[in-house]
Amino acid sequence: MPKPSQRGLLMPQSPIRKLAPLADKAKARGVKVFHLNIGQPDLKTPQVALDTLKNIDRTVLEYSPSDGFKSLRMKMLNYYSKFNIDLSIEDIIITTGGSEAVQFAFMSCLDPGDEIIVPEPAYANYTAFAIAAGAVVRPVVSTIEEGFALPPIKEFEKLITPKTKGILICNPNNPTGYLYTRKEMNQIRDLVKKYDLFLFSDEVYREFCYTGAPYISAFHLDGIEKNIILIDSVSKRYSECGIRIGALVCKNKTIHESVMKFCQARLSPPLIGQIVAEASIDVEEDYLLDMYNEYVERRKFLIDGLNRIPGVYSPIPMGAFYTVARLPIDDSDKFCAWLLSDFEYEGQTVMMAPASGFYTSPEHGRQEVRIAYVLEKEDLRQALLVLKKALEVYPGRTI
Amino acid sequence: MPKPSQRGLLMPQSPIRKLAPLADKAKARGVKVFHLNIGQPDLKTPQVALDTLKNIDRTVLEYSPSDGFKSLRMKMLNYYSKFNIDLSIEDIIITTGGSEAVQFAFMSCLDPGDEIIVPEPAYANYTAFAIAAGAVVRPVVSTIEEGFALPPIKEFEKLITPKTKGILICNPNNPTGYLYTRKEMNQIRDLVKKYDLFLFSDEVYREFCYTGAPYISAFHLDGIEKNIILIDSVSKRYSECGIRIGALVCKNKTIHESVMKFCQARLSPPLIGQIVAEASIDVEEDYLLDMYNEYVERRKFLIDGLNRIPGVYSPIPMGAFYTVARLPIDDSDKFCAWLLSDFEYEGQTVMMAPASGFYTSPEHGRQEVRIAYVLEKEDLRQALLVLKKALEVYPGRTI
Repeated sequence: MPKPSQRGLLMPQSPIRKLAPLADKAKARGVKVFHLNIGQPDLKTPQVALDTLKNIDRTVLEYSPSDGFKSLRMKMLNYYSKFNIDLSIEDIIITTGGSEAVQFAFMSCLDPGDEIIVPEPAYANYTAFAIAAGAVVRPVVSTIEEGFALPPIKEFEKLITPKTKGILICNPNNPTGYLYTRKEMNQIRDLVKKYDLFLFSDEVYREFCYTGAPYISAFHLDGIEKNIILIDSVSKRYSECGIRIGALVCKNKTIHESVMKFCQARLSPPLIGQIVAEASIDVEEDYLLDMYNEYVERRKFLIDGLNRIPGVYSPIPMGAFYTVARLPIDDSDKFCAWLLSDFEYEGQTVMMAPASGFYTSPEHGRQEVRIAYVLEKEDLRQALLVLKKALEVYPGRTI
Repeated sequence: MPKPSQRGLLMPQSPIRKLAPLADKAKARGVKVFHLNIGQPDLKTPQVALDTLKNIDRTVLEYSPSDGFKSLRMKMLNYYSKFNIDLSIEDIIITTGGSEAVQFAFMSCLDPGDEIIVPEPAYANYTAFAIAAGAVVRPVVSTIEEGFALPPIKEFEKLITPKTKGILICNPNNPTGYLYTRKEMNQIRDLVKKYDLFLFSDEVYREFCYTGAPYISAFHLDGIEKNIILIDSVSKRYSECGIRIGALVCKNKTIHESVMKFCQARLSPPLIGQIVAEASIDVEEDYLLDMYNEYVERRKFLIDGLNRIPGVYSPIPMGAFYTVARLPIDDSDKFCAWLLSDFEYEGQTVMMAPASGFYTSPEHGRQEVRIAYVLEKEDLRQALLVLKKALEVYPGRTI
């Protein structure tokens, strides 16, 4: 019986996925599970997008261009200009979700053995896509004590070798909610320039910045525009994760050409998703404002509530819709599994993502969990109550 | 300025893609271009699928399971059983088009340096996905004189090394339209068994078998069920290439687990595409019958017409909707470009795929083109006339 590839064996299994069967069993027992574990917003997709979907009058659902519809890219151009990101239509390549943008960026820029430096905790699938490309993630660990700020730039420099090809940031950050400051972004820019690195910048949460501090895009940095691969997605901002439409934005012609070969090999991004995404860009301002206000409320409510539970600490996330909190527990993998398999409070429990999945090294994040505030306030209230009660009786509690 | 990966440079540029700007220019000059170059059927998507699309009443277009909706996989199970392919629901993984199924199959089974043997001419993107995985395609050339039958099995055995991990076939075949016989399939089975190889079997054209000869699926072969990775797609059979729904079917648990890691990394296949695909499986028999009859007609018309043009030869394809024809020309890349840039007949020209893109080695296929009979008969009639006239005046003609 032939064996899978080493690459397949090396690919990480997401800690959330390991928990999924436990969640299913809990539900089968009749327990209500609050899903704080995944960035799937409960908010409605814009009506204009849903209406457009219902009014598609095509009779052949055919291939679209490999780089996506021009009309969609035109609208995105206009969208980016509102954030002072100045592009031309050829800089934008439509991808099958932000996931494919990461994948094609790595495939096009990194060869087996090449290294990228990534501040941790980080979105687990970056590592997965790096492994798929044969590349190596070299982590620089940010800490909850520093509110997950950018680690000192000398920590990055320590890791630079002839194999180092790039730096990856996610801003605003998943999983920490951190928003890089102008000063931090300038430090990154200087490093990128000094060593002529790629800067992979995942900015899918740019709508979600809560503190008044400015969102600094990689494209706002001077002198490195050919080094930047911007990763984007409409999933979060329009609550349409399922349509699988993202973008890879890049002003470097030779990289663009390389990415396009991968795009052509997979023929085209989803046709219907593109039509929905294009309509979504026209959503009325009120939709985005209401969504923003809703997340501001949830964020305040969640973080206040977390910090009121004895032994729990969460910094205040500045963006996205996640926080990484420290809990008074022995091991977050065990705790998150225990919540699903051994605990319930008034017929309810909570599913969270153990932070182990966001670090390369298992010693980090053992007491940390990622919590997505993608549920409405009343659900968050219940979830906080469940968490508090669970921490009172969890056998591995440390206080 | 950082450089693209070697992998990116190695990725092939499709010969069709190189022609696309010429086709655009021809159209800009007012020339009508008959597209025989791409497998994009002109037939309508089933009405039941279009109706379902218009009646999607979801308000949050959210992620779906990484392996696809269970309801879709259930229906596919039933669909496969009609072809005597006996599966369980866990054997089926929904992918973003057949393309992603090929990609995940290679990523999960092949490590850098690993080799797969592929009968040529072959679908060009297999090579692209092999390069993405760092794997190597070792071609065995089939010939137009033999009607593109399976080359002698000893030609395969000559190429087997410790690095050989699998064999890839496409049946019915794109680009040749060849349908492997029971005898040929048994030879492949014996080879797979003898060397314990993967058998990657792309069977997306199974509905399109025209001669009464049976379609033999890889899963119809005894004793190798753990070796088989079946590649599938709804694109062609329901004329819905744009929804990007395919499948990877595999009974090998360790491979399944590996593939699922890649699936989880990209989160989920397209939500709306899955809904449309699921509805399509319910299409009335008449739709498939009409489509079948239409292709039977087109095939006869095209092949008869081709073989009537002096110096042109096409074997009779037994399946799919392509043929590889030999033309009396110096170089099909040049000829196909010339057709778009320098020729028109009564304001019309033809776009075809030079066969060079379907061979690893440039010396093969120089006089061959792939023609897709995805246009209605009247268009095929005009296209044949244009081709005949073109061959009378093409400067590089050889008769």
